[in-house]
Amino acid sequence: MTTQEQAHAGAGADEPQGLDVFAQLCPSRAVFAELADKWSMLIMMVLHACGPQRFSELQRGVDGVSRKMLTQSLRSLERNGLVRRTVYPETPPRVVYDLLPLGRELAALVAPVGRWTEERTGLMLAAREEFDRAHPDA
Amino acid sequence: MTTQEQAHAGAGADEPQGLDVFAQLCPSRAVFAELADKWSMLIMMVLHACGPQRFSELQRGVDGVSRKMLTQSLRSLERNGLVRRTVYPETPPRVVYDLLPLGRELAALVAPVGRWTEERTGLMLAAREEFDRAHPDA
Repeated sequence: MTTQEQAHAGAGADEPQGLDVFAQLCPSRAVFAELADKWSMLIMMVLHACGPQRFSELQRGVDGVSRKMLTQSLRSLERNGLVRRTVYPETPPRVVYDLLPLGRELAALVAPVGRWTEERTGLMLAAREEFDRAHPDA
Repeated sequence: MTTQEQAHAGAGADEPQGLDVFAQLCPSRAVFAELADKWSMLIMMVLHACGPQRFSELQRGVDGVSRKMLTQSLRSLERNGLVRRTVYPETPPRVVYDLLPLGRELAALVAPVGRWTEERTGLMLAAREEFDRAHPDA
């Protein structure tokens, strides 16, 4: 068994229909590439923590996201069936985003990555300092 | 309480030292931005599934990654204390990458995101088709 076969079997042995995120041309890789993105993950985490949000609320919740990246990421999440965009016919129309069941599943897996990052940032910054001291040329 | 305060409190209430991945200028956001990346996540998943790997093995395991992106991602993971790079003084020198304890913790959280993506790709592709039918102008 080659290393590549090991990697693919080890991490994807139970996938249905032979889907394999490690394979460049597998449809699951293209989906994974859209989800494994900081803005998508932060948006999902805000919707998970706070429930339905208007665009302007998301823009405040995901501090630093540009209007363009937020629009683009929300559209990708909506297109993949993770987020629902609802327009309420008011004056002016109210547009609200919330997680669909698929999105809730993914958000529940992604939120721990965010919490872990906060908990471990101190250790990672210490590692960076040590690395930079050991590689002064870099 | 504003929505932004809700988002930050809801998702980060227990973080040590007030770290908050939702805040643009928080050090944890910069770390999160390096980790929440498809190549970093795929590399961690291969190391998690297969154990120590040489560069060429990782290049096969993470199908489609360029030499440049693999080098850059491995350096970021090494700098953040997640991956260790060991050079064995052989002829030619053997260079091996493996997960450090911090990396194992993160890989254990990231691997389920990859498996979930494989399991749910069918549903997400179906959602895409429906979305594209409903938005033929897009």
